[in-house]
Amino acid sequence: MAGNTFGKAFRLTTWGESHGSAVGAVIDGCPPGLILDQEDIEREMSRRRPGQGGAASPRKEPDKVEILSGIFTPAGETKPRTTGTPISMAIFNKDAHSKSYDNLRDIFRPGHGDKTYLAKYGIRDHRGGGRASARETAARVAAGAIAKLVLQEHGIDVCAYTVSLGGVRIETCDLAKINDNAYFCPDPAAAVRMEERVAEVRAQGDTLGGIVEILARCPAGLGEPVFDKLDAVLAQALMSIGAVKGVEIGAGFAVADMLGSQNNDPIGPTGFLTNNAGGVLAGISNGEQIRIRVAVKPIPSIAKEQKTVNLDNKEVGIRVGGRHDISAIPRIIPVCEAMVRLTLADFLLRDRAVYEERRKAP
Amino acid sequence: MAGNTFGKAFRLTTWGESHGSAVGAVIDGCPPGLILDQEDIEREMSRRRPGQGGAASPRKEPDKVEILSGIFTPAGETKPRTTGTPISMAIFNKDAHSKSYDNLRDIFRPGHGDKTYLAKYGIRDHRGGGRASARETAARVAAGAIAKLVLQEHGIDVCAYTVSLGGVRIETCDLAKINDNAYFCPDPAAAVRMEERVAEVRAQGDTLGGIVEILARCPAGLGEPVFDKLDAVLAQALMSIGAVKGVEIGAGFAVADMLGSQNNDPIGPTGFLTNNAGGVLAGISNGEQIRIRVAVKPIPSIAKEQKTVNLDNKEVGIRVGGRHDISAIPRIIPVCEAMVRLTLADFLLRDRAVYEERRKAP
Amino acid sequence: MAGNTFGKAFRLTTWGESHGSAVGAVIDGCPPGLILDQEDIEREMSRRRPGQGGAASPRKEPDKVEILSGIFTPAGETKPRTTGTPISMAIFNKDAHSKSYDNLRDIFRPGHGDKTYLAKYGIRDHRGGGRASARETAARVAAGAIAKLVLQEHGIDVCAYTVSLGGVRIETCDLAKINDNAYFCPDPAAAVRMEERVAEVRAQGDTLGGIVEILARCPAGLGEPVFDKLDAVLAQALMSIGAVKGVEIGAGFAVADMLGSQNNDPIGPTGFLTNNAGGVLAGISNGEQIRIRVAVKPIPSIAKEQKTVNLDNKEVGIRVGGRHDISAIPRIIPVCEAMVRLTLADFLLRDRAVYEERRKAP
Amino acid sequence: MAGNTFGKAFRLTTWGESHGSAVGAVIDGCPPGLILDQEDIEREMSRRRPGQGGAASPRKEPDKVEILSGIFTPAGETKPRTTGTPISMAIFNKDAHSKSYDNLRDIFRPGHGDKTYLAKYGIRDHRGGGRASARETAARVAAGAIAKLVLQEHGIDVCAYTVSLGGVRIETCDLAKINDNAYFCPDPAAAVRMEERVAEVRAQGDTLGGIVEILARCPAGLGEPVFDKLDAVLAQALMSIGAVKGVEIGAGFAVADMLGSQNNDPIGPTGFLTNNAGGVLAGISNGEQIRIRVAVKPIPSIAKEQKTVNLDNKEVGIRVGGRHDISAIPRIIPVCEAMVRLTLADFLLRDRAVYEERRKAP
Repeated sequence: MAGNTFGKAFRLTTWGESHGSAVGAVIDGCPPGLILDQEDIEREMSRRRPGQGGAASPRKEPDKVEILSGIFTPAGETKPRTTGTPISMAIFNKDAHSKSYDNLRDIFRPGHGDKTYLAKYGIRDHRGGGRASARETAARVAAGAIAKLVLQEHGIDVCAYTVSLGGVRIETCDLAKINDNAYFCPDPAAAVRMEERVAEVRAQGDTLGGIVEILARCPAGLGEPVFDKLDAVLAQALMSIGAVKGVEIGAGFAVADMLGSQNNDPIGPTGFLTNNAGGVLAGISNGEQIRIRVAVKPIPSIAKEQKTVNLDNKEVGIRVGGRHDISAIPRIIPVCEAMVRLTLADFLLRDRAVYEERRKAP
Repeated sequence: MAGNTFGKAFRLTTWGESHGSAVGAVIDGCPPGLILDQEDIEREMSRRRPGQGGAASPRKEPDKVEILSGIFTPAGETKPRTTGTPISMAIFNKDAHSKSYDNLRDIFRPGHGDKTYLAKYGIRDHRGGGRASARETAARVAAGAIAKLVLQEHGIDVCAYTVSLGGVRIETCDLAKINDNAYFCPDPAAAVRMEERVAEVRAQGDTLGGIVEILARCPAGLGEPVFDKLDAVLAQALMSIGAVKGVEIGAGFAVADMLGSQNNDPIGPTGFLTNNAGGVLAGISNGEQIRIRVAVKPIPSIAKEQKTVNLDNKEVGIRVGGRHDISAIPRIIPVCEAMVRLTLADFLLRDRAVYEERRKAP
Repeated sequence: MAGNTFGKAFRLTTWGESHGSAVGAVIDGCPPGLILDQEDIEREMSRRRPGQGGAASPRKEPDKVEILSGIFTPAGETKPRTTGTPISMAIFNKDAHSKSYDNLRDIFRPGHGDKTYLAKYGIRDHRGGGRASARETAARVAAGAIAKLVLQEHGIDVCAYTVSLGGVRIETCDLAKINDNAYFCPDPAAAVRMEERVAEVRAQGDTLGGIVEILARCPAGLGEPVFDKLDAVLAQALMSIGAVKGVEIGAGFAVADMLGSQNNDPIGPTGFLTNNAGGVLAGISNGEQIRIRVAVKPIPSIAKEQKTVNLDNKEVGIRVGGRHDISAIPRIIPVCEAMVRLTLADFLLRDRAVYEERRKAP
Repeated sequence: MAGNTFGKAFRLTTWGESHGSAVGAVIDGCPPGLILDQEDIEREMSRRRPGQGGAASPRKEPDKVEILSGIFTPAGETKPRTTGTPISMAIFNKDAHSKSYDNLRDIFRPGHGDKTYLAKYGIRDHRGGGRASARETAARVAAGAIAKLVLQEHGIDVCAYTVSLGGVRIETCDLAKINDNAYFCPDPAAAVRMEERVAEVRAQGDTLGGIVEILARCPAGLGEPVFDKLDAVLAQALMSIGAVKGVEIGAGFAVADMLGSQNNDPIGPTGFLTNNAGGVLAGISNGEQIRIRVAVKPIPSIAKEQKTVNLDNKEVGIRVGGRHDISAIPRIIPVCEAMVRLTLADFLLRDRAVYEERRKAP
């Protein structure tokens, strides 16, 4: 009943705190026989690495993933394959400065989980957020790299990018440009303005929010009515990322002002003629592009003074120093991709269990 | 791996199609000893009943809930109590006109799950949407009434209302007025304009979307890091309602344009001084009011002609007649309340399993 | 966390008490497109019907199963097919004499769950055992009939029979004779002696135990290491039947006295040369016959006087009258078959989800 | 749907292969605030260590458990406490001689999972059994040590011992003597004869089976009708140990020959007067001692020549050399204890979630 496991067929359990020995992941339910190159994981991890963009902190996290189980290199092959048994991965913490959190031992940081963790568990690991730290998402990204292998066999992939940062919105969208700038932004000109906005706010000791869009193309038929609708579980998956405060699919909140005749996607012989649904109808993928947006709140650790209380419930001022990012964007981008991949891989296996065979039946 | 069960400790399974014999619910994990008055259920069901507001169809659904198991009236008492065993409830269908769907047997309705259900299951019950019908939500509301009993013992309650319908937004918010109008609208003047907007669009053979806001007050400590964060599971719960296309909590999508210093909620001796977080920090309730908004798409069944295809993938025009509502609002309101109650009841029991005792320990 | 659901992919939830309105089952995860003839269910139900053999009570339970959802008769077909949505079934109670239990309201029956149910739930439905009644297994048998349809497509079937009753053991085993006598006994001569033993013990106001053996033939590869080993889940499935006090597979308890060289099954080109393993190795089916035995305790309701206490914890004598069977055998036989079928159907779908495709890969 | 997780509230996931980098465990759902001394774990691990008794191989496994997450030493305390977040533990493999298995790469060992793992996964890690190796149980014992901490707070404990080994049965039962001999045998004289029997069979290149009995004392009320009965889940838990081929509770298979009047346990003011039920009635603990026996098969790795086939399905002879034990007893003893503890800890938390509060209600 604790909540550290995600998925029902392709199941991920993560563990570890930001300033403990390690963070890690166990995947149970990965199909056997997949070639699992260490590089497949490192490629995803490197996209989440800090210190890349202007929004990042100077902290270095090598984030070397060690695969401890679930793979085996068959005789005559050079790369390991998954065996169908649990894949355990650990990322040992090397650059965690616990000492820098000593002054926070008795103070609740606004916007952080300090107060709620204490309310829930009655014990508090004050060092950098514990399980609530973004560090936990490293394990998700490592696991997402394995979900990606499962999806690739079925021609499914996922792509996320920044559509808004600190009030700067994209005006064009060229997906080929996403990896050309530090913000995974499909509008190069907007990326430049985002960089300027970040520099400006960094100087003020403040932080920025934004919006990330995620696209996925997958075949029709994924998703499980009625509570595990594809969009419902995607919403859970993405809201489970610490900084996310909103999720919308397709036309999203804009549907509130639309007429049925505007919002319904007409159907033609080659598919849907528009995509207000965002690729999901009645909780099942319809073969069109899945399109989701998430709202990302500003990083709560700010250098400006804020009002808070200490363990004795006395008012105190707080300035959170340390090596913090200005925005969860762009580092949240590969985390969003990972969560969508984990969701789709799970639904792919779930669909296969119950339905696939019957559909093939005459 | 099919998805008809919600919750881990307080578990709801729903079953039934809109035009089959019945829809129903089984709750497993309801604490024993609760007085379960049939009236507690009927009160919630009546709020979801069609034919109440201007947005409703003239269809009558008596929605009489029969409790088939899990209750027992102890000697010397007059009302049944829950026994801790599964509570099975059935709502037999009495007013379902399957015939009126015969002309849809070979056509995919835009905005409906017709095409995706066929893609998934390879078989299609064309009568009124099957499991994808809003009729399924009757079972959720019945179950939500029982979740409400669990929550009441802990002083937790939930309230939903309309903040926008067909472009008409509330300008004032007086929760005491919610039940005074057919739209569960806290702004009586806006309710009048909503009624006018509905009449206008009904005449055009079209339908309307809107936004619902849900409030809940619950103690600090509910929610399970990291994947079952309170807001993550609430997002799943609400997105699992057919018409919902977006969910946001607290400041929601507005966080994208906020600075950290604006978005962080300062803390004072008596609690948080603002509530941009919407009552949830790091996935755990913080004791403040939980505030969520969901985007509701227009009802897809419209009388206007739309483009679609038939089973032979030939282009055809379609006009969906029948007895359909103009908007999922207001009938979606008690469904939203039910899903939030089911989520909170589940987290209440989950929290009690693992943590409660330790917190009481010295 | 309550325990009324069995299975992970093919999931059965049962509900209902022996003397409430009904007992029932919801199956979530049944593949779509299966022809579900009402007669398929009635055939299994009739094998569990009381009043057939000498060990049975004269009570009549028509046990008519009503299918409330999850099926649809496609145009041009005459029999309904499963749709892939939840199959809800109810068996309304018609022959339940609650009055006959009134004298038990304040007394704990030895061998029954009266005392433990009160300890757990703090409330007691004294009428005939509630959920602990064998009546609950009617829902399992109905569900097992649907699992049987799933298995039949893969050539898997299950057969159970009596190997011992009241000390009378079979000396020959001709499976073709099982349905020729009231005890599902493969040794006709033993069946006659069982009948005599039952008559003798009935006259004494006492009851009898026995042993049931279950055979299943299924392809190699079913079962999920390490906790959900095929034999482990079969043990749970069978032990979950109220009267079962022991489960053994293959050589079972006899392995305790065997040498490794005796117990190991040698392997030849056409398969295993012996079957001490009982068809399961390392928790996975090996293609040989699965062979399990369960120990069935005597029916606890006996006419002889027994010592017990009442609600005030005062010593009282008790004689349990009413219409009770002399042995759970033979009525437990179709329940054992149902539980094994439900287990195998679940493992079949679980295996398909994760592994099947990869095995087909070159 | 893979099966590497056990429990619903106190959940254990194990990972790792016998000859990979490590084996490990993640516990999700451990209550916070428990003092977790490394020594508590080592004490249990040492009982499972090889090389202790005459039945053991000379192999050395230091089995040092590293705790990677889920603990924190609060300021002013000297020992770490659980934080309520996942506890990750790893046991790195140091003494694994993969080379010694090279001659087994193409041969299926009788009595092992070689053939079934290949049938299931289509890929085979031939080194020492992979997940099917008894090495996996080291992770269970480490986790069981933490379950023990949870149980201790409620006065629950568990004890296992040998009642039969290689045909030698105990004739007396003095639990105080269990730790005085290498076989955890409560009859010192029998332990001597067991030792002699082991030496005799070792000389023959053969192996031995036996029977283990497990006792537990826990309060009335644990267990979840109807599929998760306490005895049903205990049966799964114990059958999930590789060598176990049978499980019985209380009078077990002896009930087959008993009359109801013999088997029913009469009830007196201070409890049950006999304990044929083995502490469980209707799937719920009744407050009496839980008493279970499991049948343990002989170790399948024997030096004697056996018939088998190779990957080309050609007949070959096989002699399994290497450092193997003569019997799974005594090393299986702490594994049995761990599985029972894990089961009881899970049921304790599950019971607390749903029922406990209501029972306290007036």
